[in-house]
Amino acid sequence: MPGEAPMLAAARWRSAHDSMRDLLRTRARHYSLPQPFYADPGFFELDLQGIFYRRWLFAGVACEIPQPGCFFTVQIGPNSIIVVRDRTDTIRAYFNTCRHRGSRICAAEKGRVGAFVCPYHQWTYDLTGALRHAGRMHEGFSPDGIGLRPVHARTAAGTIYICLADEPPDFAPFEAALGPMLAPHDLANAKLAHEAHIVERGNWKLVMENSRECYHCRSSHPELMRTFLEAYNFQDPTADPVISAFIARCNAAGLPSDGRGGDDYRITRMPLTRNAASITMDGKEAVARALGGIAEANIGSLRWVHFPTTFNHALRDYAILVRMLPIGPQETLVTAKWLVHRDAEEGRDYKLSHLTDTWMKTNDQDRILVERNQQGVNSLGYMPGPYSQDAEAGVINFVEWYCREMEGYLG
Amino acid sequence: MPGEAPMLAAARWRSAHDSMRDLLRTRARHYSLPQPFYADPGFFELDLQGIFYRRWLFAGVACEIPQPGCFFTVQIGPNSIIVVRDRTDTIRAYFNTCRHRGSRICAAEKGRVGAFVCPYHQWTYDLTGALRHAGRMHEGFSPDGIGLRPVHARTAAGTIYICLADEPPDFAPFEAALGPMLAPHDLANAKLAHEAHIVERGNWKLVMENSRECYHCRSSHPELMRTFLEAYNFQDPTADPVISAFIARCNAAGLPSDGRGGDDYRITRMPLTRNAASITMDGKEAVARALGGIAEANIGSLRWVHFPTTFNHALRDYAILVRMLPIGPQETLVTAKWLVHRDAEEGRDYKLSHLTDTWMKTNDQDRILVERNQQGVNSLGYMPGPYSQDAEAGVINFVEWYCREMEGYLG
Amino acid sequence: MPGEAPMLAAARWRSAHDSMRDLLRTRARHYSLPQPFYADPGFFELDLQGIFYRRWLFAGVACEIPQPGCFFTVQIGPNSIIVVRDRTDTIRAYFNTCRHRGSRICAAEKGRVGAFVCPYHQWTYDLTGALRHAGRMHEGFSPDGIGLRPVHARTAAGTIYICLADEPPDFAPFEAALGPMLAPHDLANAKLAHEAHIVERGNWKLVMENSRECYHCRSSHPELMRTFLEAYNFQDPTADPVISAFIARCNAAGLPSDGRGGDDYRITRMPLTRNAASITMDGKEAVARALGGIAEANIGSLRWVHFPTTFNHALRDYAILVRMLPIGPQETLVTAKWLVHRDAEEGRDYKLSHLTDTWMKTNDQDRILVERNQQGVNSLGYMPGPYSQDAEAGVINFVEWYCREMEGYLG
Repeated sequence: MPGEAPMLAAARWRSAHDSMRDLLRTRARHYSLPQPFYADPGFFELDLQGIFYRRWLFAGVACEIPQPGCFFTVQIGPNSIIVVRDRTDTIRAYFNTCRHRGSRICAAEKGRVGAFVCPYHQWTYDLTGALRHAGRMHEGFSPDGIGLRPVHARTAAGTIYICLADEPPDFAPFEAALGPMLAPHDLANAKLAHEAHIVERGNWKLVMENSRECYHCRSSHPELMRTFLEAYNFQDPTADPVISAFIARCNAAGLPSDGRGGDDYRITRMPLTRNAASITMDGKEAVARALGGIAEANIGSLRWVHFPTTFNHALRDYAILVRMLPIGPQETLVTAKWLVHRDAEEGRDYKLSHLTDTWMKTNDQDRILVERNQQGVNSLGYMPGPYSQDAEAGVINFVEWYCREMEGYLG
Repeated sequence: MPGEAPMLAAARWRSAHDSMRDLLRTRARHYSLPQPFYADPGFFELDLQGIFYRRWLFAGVACEIPQPGCFFTVQIGPNSIIVVRDRTDTIRAYFNTCRHRGSRICAAEKGRVGAFVCPYHQWTYDLTGALRHAGRMHEGFSPDGIGLRPVHARTAAGTIYICLADEPPDFAPFEAALGPMLAPHDLANAKLAHEAHIVERGNWKLVMENSRECYHCRSSHPELMRTFLEAYNFQDPTADPVISAFIARCNAAGLPSDGRGGDDYRITRMPLTRNAASITMDGKEAVARALGGIAEANIGSLRWVHFPTTFNHALRDYAILVRMLPIGPQETLVTAKWLVHRDAEEGRDYKLSHLTDTWMKTNDQDRILVERNQQGVNSLGYMPGPYSQDAEAGVINFVEWYCREMEGYLG
Repeated sequence: MPGEAPMLAAARWRSAHDSMRDLLRTRARHYSLPQPFYADPGFFELDLQGIFYRRWLFAGVACEIPQPGCFFTVQIGPNSIIVVRDRTDTIRAYFNTCRHRGSRICAAEKGRVGAFVCPYHQWTYDLTGALRHAGRMHEGFSPDGIGLRPVHARTAAGTIYICLADEPPDFAPFEAALGPMLAPHDLANAKLAHEAHIVERGNWKLVMENSRECYHCRSSHPELMRTFLEAYNFQDPTADPVISAFIARCNAAGLPSDGRGGDDYRITRMPLTRNAASITMDGKEAVARALGGIAEANIGSLRWVHFPTTFNHALRDYAILVRMLPIGPQETLVTAKWLVHRDAEEGRDYKLSHLTDTWMKTNDQDRILVERNQQGVNSLGYMPGPYSQDAEAGVINFVEWYCREMEGYLG
């Protein structure tokens, strides 16, 4: 609970802590997790502490804040974070909380400011977070050393990640892996064409698990499956000669496409089905201008996942970035962002429904799956069940990563 | 809390457990219970464990699922249960949770299926609960021995009871008592004419207490009191010569009507007032066809209560079955089912408003009483008050049963 | 939690208790409080116990219940309290909970009754709270000694305060201080012209802190600041010769106006700005009849605050009384009551919008400030910040009072 006293929290976490540690030790591998991982408020608090307050989290895209002073806010559990471009074009992030009496400073989801002025008593911070003005304070008060509490921020090929930890884990490997693969799509010169929020009444891990397999796609996602290639060897896609030829062609066209992966991420380029050019209802590209001016046709989709908050698809004509943020033990905010070339003009170069229909339907279908999953997991009748080691290998990867992280955190 | 870890739950229940045990020991008999019994989340959790996960619970009526594959779902706290008629005409019940990743299987309240297909990954169970199909599982996976987790199900004269315990208590005495008395109303050949749900913002025990006395009827239920006989000697109704003559007449007409009772149930047949033929606004029968083709007129109502979930009235022309299921510490779902002869046709043989008006009004009046009771009980100003040992003998019976059950459970 | 068992509560409060005591010991003075004080459910429970169940609380105005049997209800956390004028014109208060099975008795916010009749089983209490009738009780039951549980009630110059403690603190000093200063406004002969409720999603202390400074007024309250005098020496207003002349004039006109204060209250009379006659949009009086028939013009406003529940302004033409009651850790009910001379007639003597517009806007502006403050305080990014010892001296006074009270309560 956000406002809980340290000692109370300590007492509660001690029990959740011991309980989670026991369950991590005794769980069956390749089985879904025991109920409390998906449902218990104490376990959720531990997830915030062990995952969301320690790992790099996808926040948004640099092209959303193209000018100095442009900002957006993002909510991590009870914490609102401001992400802003400063006057030196550096992306910075801060807790959206005034150092005076703690008021939220930016109420808007997005905007542009010259400085951050708290609406309560007009304490004013510059874009580097330093307190520049605090009116009517008593003699002896000094603004020196008072500033917005910073949050780490990094970018990778135009995507922004933040980390709330004092000492963030190494971001370089992911940046090095994603950078060259995503660079041709030139997201720095893209623009946000559409954004959609869905609140799913399910634990964030059920949302992530759902995104890590396509075992459910055939029956639940008819629109997506018009173009989306599902059946491949997840461990070694290049074993399929069609896929290996596709990857070779893309590499030759200047699109580095050999799969890369680390503990908490995985990046691959995959063809679409039936020679589809894009993930749309008709399989045709939705946007007349290619991202990054890519010339090569039929380049499939560059897919990347980064635990715990995002999975993405960059196509030739658009990219969709999906961000999953925990709200509560059984509630997750899923935000989808559609990016197109910044010179693409709605009406002339693309029709919004053509661009967004497939994923709007798909994401809502996933919401229903996740919510039913949560309902069933909440029952006494639930017990961990076996993942398919073939069709749910991606789920197993995620769950193993999660368990390792929590084991590390719990000590 | 549904998803709580075993150790957390243990820690919390230990305190609630000790606290409830103390209060059971020190409570004043024939007084309402101390506040936590009606309001505390930990006590509610103990009620689920000690009562709702151990006792037989009224679920519905066999005629609601007349064909093999017909099912309905019922929610017991966080647990959705499927009740289904299998191909051998046996009524069975299962947890509505897939053994794969725990998705809820049946979203609908009612329906008919050939098999249970989980909407997530199409795991398919036959009507006996056995897993018949699980696609794309890895080599070595066997569906043998995997099935929907069963819940005990029994019927008594066409009414269905379920029990979530591994070892259910003996159902036979209640079945033996209710069977002959209810048989003439032939509910197996009835049909559901109407069903209404009310969520009452009150603890389930306040709902049950309210149903166990008619001390409040005169002022709160003017419509019901047009026909409902209230003032009789609860301990020995036959002391009243009018009632004993009524019972003798019913017995002679082939309607066994001598009152029967056990620890957790009580069954009596009582006349109505003013020679009313049925509980309706005008005292006339609402349905042209008698249940079970009963020939005798003016047979009053067969009333039965079964703790903790139901009270009922079977009249000559219709039966109303009321089911009370706990949602939370201060929230209860009350469902009323009106049954008529299966050949009775709405419009021709009955008018729906004539059939339902009295109890629709009565049940909503009771909702208001229960909710006000809860509000007052939540106050610091509440202290247990004395039940009338005359007018509230039924409430005392219920409270004593509840306390015995919980004492037994807490050990 | 209202219905928690004593032992459970004890266990929880032991931790919250220890935790709050530590934080009270280690907090930085003249800084806002650590997060749990504004956000934690356990701390909120301690606030109820230590403040709201021990101190005098502003409930309403005697002129709201002008006749014997007139009552209103007021909600203190989970407790509904009835405030009533009895047949001897004494103001009395009771828990709004029947001594039978605990039903809430009065559902209405206001009304007039001859006796209190519980709507459940018609137990009937006279205006002194004594049980006069309980129907159908068993032999041996006696109503003697059974009555509505009393709550202490006192009045000061026509304003009503209640105390839920068995042994209330001394009310006399506040009564003695407020009495002569408020008497000329003759609230006993006023009437309620309008009442407005706002639920603010913020901790009650954030609501009170917001009311204790006008540092935020310039930017947030343009309508109020047309007439409201803000910039004065809070510690010694009379240091300003304009103010000291104003006070001398008011004193001479029979309006005792020298400031008075105690631990938990402060009373001052202050001029308005720009020779405004009242706090209205145009600075003119809204009501043609003066409260108490005060003859002197331009008498500014008599302001008084009483911790923890009220701040008020009595002007020549109207008084506004604001009551703040805690609902939950992050939710507070704010009620504003506008009083005018009882012979003033709407339409003839005042226009309602002229009377209420300024405070309606101001109170809603404050709601937004409080809610943003709560949102920011809930973040990991929050840490206690420095109050301005000049502009926020009133906030510091309140916070120091609160901490002293809780230190006393926690022992």
